[in-house]
Amino acid sequence: MVEIQKKFIGFSSAALFQILRDGQPRTKAELVDITGLSRSTIQLRIETLLELGLLAPVNDAVSTGGRPSAQVALNPTARVVAAVDFGATQASVAITDLTGVILARTSSKIIIADGPETCLGWMVRTIRSELAALHLKEADLISIGIGLPGPVEHSTGRPSNPPIMPGWDDFDVPGFVNHHLKATVLVDNDVNIMALGEQKFAWPDTENMVFLKASTGIGSGIISSGILQRGAEGIAGDIGHVQIARGHSVPCRCGNSGCLEAMAAGPALAQQLTLAGVNFKGKPIATLSDVVAATKAGELAAIQAVRQAGRDIGEVLTTCVSVLNPSVIAIGGSLALAGEHLLAGVREVVYSRSMPLATEHLTIAQSRAGLDAGIIGASVMAIEYALSIESVDAMAAALES
Amino acid sequence: MVEIQKKFIGFSSAALFQILRDGQPRTKAELVDITGLSRSTIQLRIETLLELGLLAPVNDAVSTGGRPSAQVALNPTARVVAAVDFGATQASVAITDLTGVILARTSSKIIIADGPETCLGWMVRTIRSELAALHLKEADLISIGIGLPGPVEHSTGRPSNPPIMPGWDDFDVPGFVNHHLKATVLVDNDVNIMALGEQKFAWPDTENMVFLKASTGIGSGIISSGILQRGAEGIAGDIGHVQIARGHSVPCRCGNSGCLEAMAAGPALAQQLTLAGVNFKGKPIATLSDVVAATKAGELAAIQAVRQAGRDIGEVLTTCVSVLNPSVIAIGGSLALAGEHLLAGVREVVYSRSMPLATEHLTIAQSRAGLDAGIIGASVMAIEYALSIESVDAMAAALES
Repeated sequence: MVEIQKKFIGFSSAALFQILRDGQPRTKAELVDITGLSRSTIQLRIETLLELGLLAPVNDAVSTGGRPSAQVALNPTARVVAAVDFGATQASVAITDLTGVILARTSSKIIIADGPETCLGWMVRTIRSELAALHLKEADLISIGIGLPGPVEHSTGRPSNPPIMPGWDDFDVPGFVNHHLKATVLVDNDVNIMALGEQKFAWPDTENMVFLKASTGIGSGIISSGILQRGAEGIAGDIGHVQIARGHSVPCRCGNSGCLEAMAAGPALAQQLTLAGVNFKGKPIATLSDVVAATKAGELAAIQAVRQAGRDIGEVLTTCVSVLNPSVIAIGGSLALAGEHLLAGVREVVYSRSMPLATEHLTIAQSRAGLDAGIIGASVMAIEYALSIESVDAMAAALES
Repeated sequence: MVEIQKKFIGFSSAALFQILRDGQPRTKAELVDITGLSRSTIQLRIETLLELGLLAPVNDAVSTGGRPSAQVALNPTARVVAAVDFGATQASVAITDLTGVILARTSSKIIIADGPETCLGWMVRTIRSELAALHLKEADLISIGIGLPGPVEHSTGRPSNPPIMPGWDDFDVPGFVNHHLKATVLVDNDVNIMALGEQKFAWPDTENMVFLKASTGIGSGIISSGILQRGAEGIAGDIGHVQIARGHSVPCRCGNSGCLEAMAAGPALAQQLTLAGVNFKGKPIATLSDVVAATKAGELAAIQAVRQAGRDIGEVLTTCVSVLNPSVIAIGGSLALAGEHLLAGVREVVYSRSMPLATEHLTIAQSRAGLDAGIIGASVMAIEYALSIESVDAMAAALES
């Protein structure tokens, strides 16, 4: 109990650091004023943070007269985090500094269905080689943020019955990674990670937003009151299997019928166009990429299918608008590359079916972070932990022992 | 900037009080240990809090040997808050202590459509007479929590285009009340307040829940990550105008058609039964109370209508389950008094249409706080403010000036 309260009130180095993590330089006198701590205590705590590499002296202090007063500020480059984004058939690993600047990045064709040992083994090797190329040590890596294409129990880092990830169910991702790298491992669903990345990249002041990913599947990440919402089992935002009005008779791989995903995700659109005998450049439209290419080329049947998918997605998003009252809906994923036709369908339904107050200040936009949303979000998640009281406390304790 | 950080790190009396608001008694030595402050500083801050009546000495200290060490703890009874719940035609005013124990309570037939001066005038008089009956002074009242039956901008306390509250649109509720009573005024939508009350009363450890009110209208209050969610414009949870699949042709008072409220709220059920020529005790079923009474008496047509309303509500709640992943859905409001028939319809749809992981640990239950949900929630909102750093800081500053 006392421990929790010490963290809350926070007189440790970690708590002092919370003031400085905004990056603004401050003198010791200012820190004494802010905290009420004695000058000697401030001195001790700053020394710990300097030694950890989290703070650095700032030399261009503007003095208020008399001798120049030494300032300290967040040192964003001494320590790093890793950001990892796994898709179904592709993965990226980046090293970023503590403000999210990408220092190194590798993308590769990695098949998630090859299982956790293979995928995470590649990830560990890639992190190591990136660190080496940056002349950094493994000890410089504070944390690793990982996005996976399936439901994840965020508190334990274990996937929960992920449909496209054989071998991953209940796999202890942090445990496996920590056999090779000591850094703290945080795992989440890829759409949640993308929502964090989109917010950081394009909407930093938005406290209530929905990020929708439309691709092979359909899912969303929800930010309410400024916080990524995971729900009771970590599956908040998992809207791909909401039944839409026009879809009753279409069977879905989940066992129900009429699900949004069965009507409006990439494979559904490709199948609809194939069955309708629609060709593009002399060949049947067979994949999501074909749908996007045909739409961009102005093929009418593809445009109509994408617009209708937008309406279907809009039907579910209309309920999200009533439930969550967001100010931004960002639409990403491969299907969003089809451009304004998808958004036009979404807007058509959301704006016609919502209450006036809910849409007065609502922006519905294509994802601006685009394909980088996942890697940026994984970095945000890793940095959020790296700079937290919990993390800095642990680093300070390791230093002192 | 510095001010904000002082509050965050918190070395003020208000911050010290945050440790003690859990009600657990602590000695000065323990507080020195928790905070790192000097004994003399702790002494000064405790004196302020004793003088404000927020702390009291505790005499039954268990000493660890030597002379008994004096403890202090939250004094829940020296100061009070007011909790006010306005419905369309009924209002309640309670005075509670700082743990939410109701000390006095008045309910009266108050017509919200009579306008803010009339309703709030009655509220002010009632608060004053309750305080007098309790031998309390107006200065003992720290805050007033008010629930109103319409959309409210919580940050300003002004209703936003409330449909059943003529004269209230954009009315400065806190400004008006503060002409008569000095206490800080917090205002929110009645369903949000009921969600807070239901959580406090029945589900204190539940971080993700949906409270649904089914009555003359249909609305919900959303608690995610332990926080009541208000959304960008304060209308999160306003799900009465979500379109349901079977409802396309039924016009709603909002101007759209097929809304949940137009199909499943009390007036819609009464109208459906009237049109079907269903009588109960020799008279047509004309009101929500008639519907509830007929259902409880086992009238088949009424039971069928209520069960279908449950299915309709369940359709929208199914999407809420996908979006929010709650562990509890509590159903309140007058229509819930019809009992298990409504819940059976809700469960039928939610359990058949949701993904297995989302319903594995989901409880769908009738509201346990019942008619008290609003008044308990208003008290929770008022106490949350009263014990906050902001509030205690203001009281300490007033004391010192």
